[in-house]
Amino acid sequence: MIKCWLTCMKCAQTQPMGLVSRCACGGLLAVEYDLELAKRTLTKEALADRASSMWRYIELLPVQRENAVVSLGEGWTPLIRMTRAEAQLPLKRLYVKREEQNPTGSFKSRGFSSAVSLLHERGIAKAAVPSNGNAASALAAYCARAGMEAYVFVPQDCPELIIQECLNYGAHVYLVDGFIHDAGRIVEEGKATEGWFNTGTMREPGRVEGKKTMGLEMAEQLEWQLPDVIVYPTGGGSGIIGLWKAFRELKELGWVHGELPRLVSVQEAGCQPIVDAVQGFGAGGSSSDTLPTGLRVPEPPDCGIIAELLKQTKGTAVAVTQGEIMKAQQALGKQGISASPEGAATWAGLMRLIEEGWIGTDDSVVLFNTSHAIKYESLQPKPTVPVIRTYANFVHWKRN
Amino acid sequence: MIKCWLTCMKCAQTQPMGLVSRCACGGLLAVEYDLELAKRTLTKEALADRASSMWRYIELLPVQRENAVVSLGEGWTPLIRMTRAEAQLPLKRLYVKREEQNPTGSFKSRGFSSAVSLLHERGIAKAAVPSNGNAASALAAYCARAGMEAYVFVPQDCPELIIQECLNYGAHVYLVDGFIHDAGRIVEEGKATEGWFNTGTMREPGRVEGKKTMGLEMAEQLEWQLPDVIVYPTGGGSGIIGLWKAFRELKELGWVHGELPRLVSVQEAGCQPIVDAVQGFGAGGSSSDTLPTGLRVPEPPDCGIIAELLKQTKGTAVAVTQGEIMKAQQALGKQGISASPEGAATWAGLMRLIEEGWIGTDDSVVLFNTSHAIKYESLQPKPTVPVIRTYANFVHWKRN
Repeated sequence: MIKCWLTCMKCAQTQPMGLVSRCACGGLLAVEYDLELAKRTLTKEALADRASSMWRYIELLPVQRENAVVSLGEGWTPLIRMTRAEAQLPLKRLYVKREEQNPTGSFKSRGFSSAVSLLHERGIAKAAVPSNGNAASALAAYCARAGMEAYVFVPQDCPELIIQECLNYGAHVYLVDGFIHDAGRIVEEGKATEGWFNTGTMREPGRVEGKKTMGLEMAEQLEWQLPDVIVYPTGGGSGIIGLWKAFRELKELGWVHGELPRLVSVQEAGCQPIVDAVQGFGAGGSSSDTLPTGLRVPEPPDCGIIAELLKQTKGTAVAVTQGEIMKAQQALGKQGISASPEGAATWAGLMRLIEEGWIGTDDSVVLFNTSHAIKYESLQPKPTVPVIRTYANFVHWKRN
Repeated sequence: MIKCWLTCMKCAQTQPMGLVSRCACGGLLAVEYDLELAKRTLTKEALADRASSMWRYIELLPVQRENAVVSLGEGWTPLIRMTRAEAQLPLKRLYVKREEQNPTGSFKSRGFSSAVSLLHERGIAKAAVPSNGNAASALAAYCARAGMEAYVFVPQDCPELIIQECLNYGAHVYLVDGFIHDAGRIVEEGKATEGWFNTGTMREPGRVEGKKTMGLEMAEQLEWQLPDVIVYPTGGGSGIIGLWKAFRELKELGWVHGELPRLVSVQEAGCQPIVDAVQGFGAGGSSSDTLPTGLRVPEPPDCGIIAELLKQTKGTAVAVTQGEIMKAQQALGKQGISASPEGAATWAGLMRLIEEGWIGTDDSVVLFNTSHAIKYESLQPKPTVPVIRTYANFVHWKRN
């Protein structure tokens, strides 16, 4: 009974499931499932009794044995409706998917729950990742849970808190004087000697599949009515592939119908290879002045595929400025949402697309808040807060 | 149709539901429900289709109108089994309830979702709270969601990150040169003039009811089989009242049977009024040398009630040292759990109680991890992490 296999997104050749990501032709490999087999146990009714985690969709995840699953309680994050914002904005419905509520405080928990499960299933004891931060802490946490060793390599301006987080999980942490792709080179170079498995973006099939569950969940939470637009913060871009795969599989299962949501990638202006690719410019011109967040991926490994998927869904890509991101973080905060710079970028992107008329009164929109604001506190200006002893001090402060 | 009312925990007098917490006799008021009425709609079967949030138990929460609920996606947090630890420890089963996965990164989301809903339902537009941090950011977030104003007062050594978090939610933040009870005096004194509602510990009935859902969820997640022991980090102690209420209501509903779990409060040695009360010492001797966490409540308003409830369940209270807490944080981290000092204290308490033979091989145990490690990063020693450029640098570092 073969549950899943790998298919090349370029030449369509198939091969057995394994920890590889590249076809002989150089194309990216994607996991495909025997959906007829999946349907036997995965029904809408069955879901009512399933775990409140991303593993509720186990038939659509690439592990072979349920007891190999390395789980910390990831997924099934809230999708909350922004009713107050809806009243003020020219759109139909607005939701935020709260990915910061994952075990490691970011959406990266999903990809690493899946990827580490695949490694664990095969008896691999050591993993490494080049990361802007949240992938590093997710690898660290899931390796800790599985009793595996984690090596993480992050740019040296990575928020201190995330470095501390990786250390708390017992990972070996190295700061890299360079970008995420420089870290990637170190991981790749050390692979043979150190014996670690490279879990970097698009290096194995598990992470995309884990991220796919964001799309599956969103669909289930919306009672299988897909939204018109999804605004997603994009660094490496595996999340876009994951969302696209989710909707394609749900269509094949017959659970969703009609057009796919228009997928929008948001990037930070100055490091916008996907925006450039969508607009037909070559990659490049990526400045090092951008924020040290998950959006800062100057050389995403599969930029072309991402751009193509965005276009296929009639979506687009938007670059927003640091100033817009900071403003958006405040705007979401004042609605009660702890938004990381990446998550806040989706709000900034939404504002831009409304302004341009690209999102209109008929559109229902889902924003993905990928991480907590607090993880990036070190990027914010230090506030001055009054110190008082008594209520009289408070009154004095308030008056002045 | 009266859904709920208030009953004095001391003199048993009842009064209509309202935003009060003290009986004329000085006793603490607790919300009581018409459980026969609740049963008409709240069934185990009905729960399968309910929201994946604490509001799935709306019949057991004190709001009158569902549209008054102020929700950010709180509750229904994972309860994960610690299988690797189970293999090493002399106990039957071990679980961690991951309260850090709440919207504001702590269990305080629950109490404030409930309390702010009650305020919102009554048209109150301004709320204040004295807090060690996590209650402050929760009030700030829920007020932001409801369009209300929040004033928060925290000790001046409150972790910087939490202060920043409150500011992100648009709250008015004041640092107090003193403890949480000093902050409490300011809030109380300003109440009449400033027009804010005091949402401090045991000042209104909503927060305890929100915390109660931790117990309801835990029971549901364990398929209505209560554990033998619950280890809970205790500051003000409203969580203990909430857990106790949860089990009592579930018993009355006929959903759980047998003995209540033995409730254990964990505190930090040096600020241990509840431990002292359980052991029959007077309160006092609370040192200011303890960590600035939620455990540091030298003068809990209802210390006697907490001690009594612990004894009633055949539970106990344990004081653990700062060193034990720090070690426990590492121990949980290495199992993939981001544990705040308070949450880590439960692991330290568990170790102590196993050592003393108070917890044994027949016991199933649940620990409550109330918040994220990352919120308290400023309390940890700054790590030294190597900076490298190449794989050769890595090899060099590793060798030396």
